Amino acid sequence: METLSFRIPFGTLLSCRIARAYYPLLKRQKSSTTKSDFRDRSLHKYFFDFQTRWRDNDIYGHVNNVVYGEWVDSIVNKYLIEKCSLEPLKSPLIGFVVSSHCNYYSPVSYPSKIEAGLFVKRIGKSSVDYCVGIFDNCPSEKASAVGGFTHVFVDRINHRPQPIDDEMKKQFLSISHINH
Amino acid sequence: METLSFRIPFGTLLSCRIARAYYPLLKRQKSSTTKSDFRDRSLHKYFFDFQTRWRDNDIYGHVNNVVYGEWVDSIVNKYLIEKCSLEPLKSPLIGFVVSSHCNYYSPVSYPSKIEAGLFVKRIGKSSVDYCVGIFDNCPSEKASAVGGFTHVFVDRINHRPQPIDDEMKKQFLSISHINH
Amino acid sequence: METLSFRIPFGTLLSCRIARAYYPLLKRQKSSTTKSDFRDRSLHKYFFDFQTRWRDNDIYGHVNNVVYGEWVDSIVNKYLIEKCSLEPLKSPLIGFVVSSHCNYYSPVSYPSKIEAGLFVKRIGKSSVDYCVGIFDNCPSEKASAVGGFTHVFVDRINHRPQPIDDEMKKQFLSISHINH
Amino acid sequence: METLSFRIPFGTLLSCRIARAYYPLLKRQKSSTTKSDFRDRSLHKYFFDFQTRWRDNDIYGHVNNVVYGEWVDSIVNKYLIEKCSLEPLKSPLIGFVVSSHCNYYSPVSYPSKIEAGLFVKRIGKSSVDYCVGIFDNCPSEKASAVGGFTHVFVDRINHRPQPIDDEMKKQFLSISHINH
Repeated sequence: METLSFRIPFGTLLSCRIARAYYPLLKRQKSSTTKSDFRDRSLHKYFFDFQTRWRDNDIYGHVNNVVYGEWVDSIVNKYLIEKCSLEPLKSPLIGFVVSSHCNYYSPVSYPSKIEAGLFVKRIGKSSVDYCVGIFDNCPSEKASAVGGFTHVFVDRINHRPQPIDDEMKKQFLSISHINH
Repeated sequence: METLSFRIPFGTLLSCRIARAYYPLLKRQKSSTTKSDFRDRSLHKYFFDFQTRWRDNDIYGHVNNVVYGEWVDSIVNKYLIEKCSLEPLKSPLIGFVVSSHCNYYSPVSYPSKIEAGLFVKRIGKSSVDYCVGIFDNCPSEKASAVGGFTHVFVDRINHRPQPIDDEMKKQFLSISHINH
Repeated sequence: METLSFRIPFGTLLSCRIARAYYPLLKRQKSSTTKSDFRDRSLHKYFFDFQTRWRDNDIYGHVNNVVYGEWVDSIVNKYLIEKCSLEPLKSPLIGFVVSSHCNYYSPVSYPSKIEAGLFVKRIGKSSVDYCVGIFDNCPSEKASAVGGFTHVFVDRINHRPQPIDDEMKKQFLSISHINH
Repeated sequence: METLSFRIPFGTLLSCRIARAYYPLLKRQKSSTTKSDFRDRSLHKYFFDFQTRWRDNDIYGHVNNVVYGEWVDSIVNKYLIEKCSLEPLKSPLIGFVVSSHCNYYSPVSYPSKIEAGLFVKRIGKSSVDYCVGIFDNCPSEKASAVGGFTHVFVDRINHRPQPIDDEMKKQFLSISHINH
């Protein structure tokens, strides 16, 4: 039943911390922050640089929230292509996004260069949860935003979930914090 | 301290249902679904049509996950402009997105027309949580995707959180399920 | 050798008129405008509505220039799907864009609704030139922008140009001003 | 009258060459190619790298044509910010795009890295024409695409054209082939 045991997205743990980080005036809560903080650069295991684009900025002069999703998508698929032999136009197994989320801590603006960091949070039978940090003004130790999504791997033709094979699993484990 | 009481995103309650809806082969869990289902059209209170665009489709022929975020952004800001007097280039109070999420139940493809439905889930002192359903093949009673985000309203210049005024609050209440 | 006779894009005829339309202060030139004006709604033969999106606006509060290209792409492919049996994931013949252009006469802003109008300007052996007008505040008699592109139809697998078949040609002629 | 003397976009000179480059099977025309070829890397004077993004690929597995416009926009504004003191949220003078174009010679696909090269083709009283080459698989000596646009500089408030000042003109000249 592993496939169905989608866990609570880590984002839920961070909500008040978001507010604190983004808006320094909000007063601190007493919440104990014993959980690891997904903003830490040290947690991330695969990195990739992106240039912001003029169009990324919205009317307020910050990168629009949906653009972070483009970066998340891009680093994940880069990893799949580079390490897991994904060929987007041919592979029999493709990944469908079933859930996505992002928390925004501090704004990023064009023409900054940003760096995305990736690690794998959970590996299921057919699915995997990725965590992606967006780091501005590299090198920065705390992410400006932390997003991610759940991929379910399905057959390209009939769209039914398929188990992740051993080689792929090995690659996911290698950028995870899961004991194996 | 209402502002800080960010609640657990509803998405967490729906995760296994997502998998069920999207991938009919996954076997049903015993989870009781007593909670209301945010996919129901009847919950949504403000509607807006969008055309998909050629560029929305990704390499697999489905609308890419980030595009849903564009629709969420667009219906929320449409409501703010139309009902809450937001003038994006001038208003002293602007909304920053601090957290966003989306669950995807069934794919949508260009050239479909979609309909977005909006309701307000939570109103804080300076912040508000929106829930947006994306309905394909209108009229459809169940959303193809359910997303949303948290806006914190801040001063345009110094970016510090500002309380939502009474008129705005009234408009948010009018598309919420909050007792008032 | 009709395929190779790409003609001068009509945009070149309009350049100074653009400036006049966009910036009313620029003084009028003596150029005779005997050529038909592609901004006229009456020239366009196939129409389609689009909603602007929040992300379409750039930092200056106008729809960014590249978004017009998304609308041009979308109405052309809509026509191909609807009238010319294009199935983007399957058809043996697909269209590659080899040249594109757009002239901008007056700005459009989210949350406006826009209407795109299409006609075919030239039909070659394997290629076709489309002209697309973007009309704001419908109904408007003059386009806010006029763009277009050249499609070369190629084999999906080997990417070599293929002749346009008779049925497709008929559909292109039906939205053109070409005598036949 | 310099402002109004918009010249014929260079793209018109290249149309048949496009076809030749993109589709090697098309047979060569006799056209003399005495004009300089804007695809040559050596003509470009200011360079900037971009990462492609997953979303850039369209359903055929190539970067969608409108994305090139995002790169053109981005390198031009980068130059304006870096060399011409443009502050997008504050500067009294802002650039409006009145005409844009792009010719596509060979496809680019995510996850390639691309390099954009910029030079200034024409400087008017209030306007400037940019030429941007998109180079794949760096270092490449021939651009995969050549685009550009015309900026008219206007007052941020009233949107009336304003003369380019001497410092800005100097910066434009420095990346042009104009004798001065």
